[in-house]
Amino acid sequence: MTAYLLTVGDEILIGQITDTNSAWMAQQLNLQGIRIAGKASVGDVHPNIIEAMDYALSKADLVLVTGGLGATKDDITKKAIAEYFGVEMIFHTETWQRLQYFFKKLGKIPNEMNKNGCFMPANAEILPNDRGLAPAMWFEKGGKVMVSMPGVPYEMMHLMTDRVLPRLKNSFPVSPVVHRTLMTAGEGETGLAALLSDFEDALPTHIKLAYLPAFNQVRLRLTATGADEAVLNQEIEVEKAKMETIVAKFVYGYDDEPLAKAVGKLLVAKNWTLATAESCTGGYLSAQLTANAGSSAYFKGGIIAYHNDLKTNILKVKEATLEAHGAVSEQTVREMVQGALNACEADIAVAISGIAGPGGGSKEKPVGTIWVAAGNKTHTRVAHLTIDRGRNRNVEYAASVALNLVRLFLLATEKDVILRDA
Amino acid sequence: MTAYLLTVGDEILIGQITDTNSAWMAQQLNLQGIRIAGKASVGDVHPNIIEAMDYALSKADLVLVTGGLGATKDDITKKAIAEYFGVEMIFHTETWQRLQYFFKKLGKIPNEMNKNGCFMPANAEILPNDRGLAPAMWFEKGGKVMVSMPGVPYEMMHLMTDRVLPRLKNSFPVSPVVHRTLMTAGEGETGLAALLSDFEDALPTHIKLAYLPAFNQVRLRLTATGADEAVLNQEIEVEKAKMETIVAKFVYGYDDEPLAKAVGKLLVAKNWTLATAESCTGGYLSAQLTANAGSSAYFKGGIIAYHNDLKTNILKVKEATLEAHGAVSEQTVREMVQGALNACEADIAVAISGIAGPGGGSKEKPVGTIWVAAGNKTHTRVAHLTIDRGRNRNVEYAASVALNLVRLFLLATEKDVILRDA
Repeated sequence: MTAYLLTVGDEILIGQITDTNSAWMAQQLNLQGIRIAGKASVGDVHPNIIEAMDYALSKADLVLVTGGLGATKDDITKKAIAEYFGVEMIFHTETWQRLQYFFKKLGKIPNEMNKNGCFMPANAEILPNDRGLAPAMWFEKGGKVMVSMPGVPYEMMHLMTDRVLPRLKNSFPVSPVVHRTLMTAGEGETGLAALLSDFEDALPTHIKLAYLPAFNQVRLRLTATGADEAVLNQEIEVEKAKMETIVAKFVYGYDDEPLAKAVGKLLVAKNWTLATAESCTGGYLSAQLTANAGSSAYFKGGIIAYHNDLKTNILKVKEATLEAHGAVSEQTVREMVQGALNACEADIAVAISGIAGPGGGSKEKPVGTIWVAAGNKTHTRVAHLTIDRGRNRNVEYAASVALNLVRLFLLATEKDVILRDA
Repeated sequence: MTAYLLTVGDEILIGQITDTNSAWMAQQLNLQGIRIAGKASVGDVHPNIIEAMDYALSKADLVLVTGGLGATKDDITKKAIAEYFGVEMIFHTETWQRLQYFFKKLGKIPNEMNKNGCFMPANAEILPNDRGLAPAMWFEKGGKVMVSMPGVPYEMMHLMTDRVLPRLKNSFPVSPVVHRTLMTAGEGETGLAALLSDFEDALPTHIKLAYLPAFNQVRLRLTATGADEAVLNQEIEVEKAKMETIVAKFVYGYDDEPLAKAVGKLLVAKNWTLATAESCTGGYLSAQLTANAGSSAYFKGGIIAYHNDLKTNILKVKEATLEAHGAVSEQTVREMVQGALNACEADIAVAISGIAGPGGGSKEKPVGTIWVAAGNKTHTRVAHLTIDRGRNRNVEYAASVALNLVRLFLLATEKDVILRDA
């Protein structure tokens, strides 16, 4: 089964918002064995929406339309759909009742515009929305399905997860597709491909390997398609185990687990707590850690020592060190680690100090020069980055290296390990 | 002049990456008066790429294609273009020379695959890429233009800014379009629309107002189209001034300046430094501040007191306060502000403590309960958030409220101001 994703909204075409919905929807659909044939965005223009829907339905079995619903949009998608299918709009009492109840809870009274929004195309099946006013609408024609949903991510995700995907699973069983993903860090796509070359050649034809890279991490995703889901699961587990043996030292987790979350698991297993000391990454690394629910189990907190004062006052980096080596140096990040361990009373700390750019570089320390250290009272691992990827990407990359450094530290033996990585 | 954006790549259709390029390109093109007619994504499938290009060229005067270039992609876009135009591939010596030089700098030797990548469609004009191996290619046919670029954002942005946009400006002068944007915070779209209702009705027909909302902020963008750019600029300045008078208290900046950057300017004007004390936002607020180049002029740093230990040990929040009111309370965030002022030796500090979710809520303090405070030694402003928008959006919204609270504090008179906002 194939799907086409259509987003309606001027705000997308003028670049006001970034379309995050499509990537999320594609991932969810893929997990159910539905492949995306293509995707497109169209403006809030009635004839363009109709044309785009028609095109999409010619390209795929399922069309998911987001956006163009609600009062501020004059319900343009709904009207285009009604015209496309040549149906009337009829008042949907249940939606009106839900809306009245929702307004009552907020202590407000719905107006005429709100009530008019409860008219739906006559051939729509209404899928209620628990997170907003506009329900999803399910349409079928000629063996094809079209679903219209609001564009607000929080609402779309609920509607997909709780209404649309379960219904697709029941109504349109597809050839089973199973995935297994190894999450790796510390080796690039090319290096991993070299290690896995023979393994890939030996894969049966119905199992494929995809390399999905990002910031010092690569996801290795196996996908198996066939007739019998149980058999596929057995087969893919075998291949996954083989693959894991080959690249074991780079594997930090499975199936889209973020590196920060995997680090959290290792910390919990050791009953250790972590603290951060950030300079040029300015909170980005800590935000990666705290983005995961449950991080309070292992993350004590951190010091953003953006100004050198905070490095000396709070992290107790020695003035002499700053003078002799500078803030961006191996010596300074080592002392930042010790300082964070003490200030935050954590078992392990990770520190970053560097020049994210675009300003601040020099001949000796050009933009992109970043030192990262992770350690405890007795041992430290250090990494030295030098490539300039632009300010934002320098920060993202350094945070990824920092997380991996913590991971490697947690996995290391008790031998005194002082290495320069990456 | 209209443009159609086409992205080539399986990685987009499987949801592996989020397409950030399109939004950026759309904004840049809009600034030059080029409207986006639509956009689409297609997979790494030769005939699909050809079909998509043909469709795009039927919809707009200019087609920008990103992705599908380079060795890992088997240069699929390039080959599709050559077939579409019915031309041969010829070896481009200058690209080969640049590539050899680039490899030499890295101490590497190009291989046969790299050399083969230097073949270009015979009708291409090559626009050199200073940030990567694949150049951009410019094609013209029947008065229309198609440009192919790599999908790597860092490279695409350089090619657009330094090669494509200047060339478009010269080759295809468009009806002048001018924009002015007021950046506002603290009032929603509906509230602003109510205030600006008469102003909008009175706007001349060739000047339009767009409301572009995000997280407690709304961009108010005026767009004027006409024949004479100088006249348009005069007219739009007049309307902008009128608009600003009406919504002055919400305006924090102009023309897409981030709120964090606007706050930075206010701090610099007062010669004040800022420190942060974050709990549930875990670094996100600080990262917003440090994302702006030059933030070291006003941002000292911060304490991420994720664990209550750090609230008491580093920020000196009283144990009695935590016991009586809890970590998520007005009293605690006020003490966090004072603690950050002292620990970081800053002139003003902002603190956030709350329950981002999904866990951690209670009947008295449900998920979404977040306290924010901004102040100095003598005065504090406080905000109390209650709506649950989901973990990530709770964090983003709290950070936005925090920045606005700092802004309002910096603009306030010396009267003792203790308000509850939002």
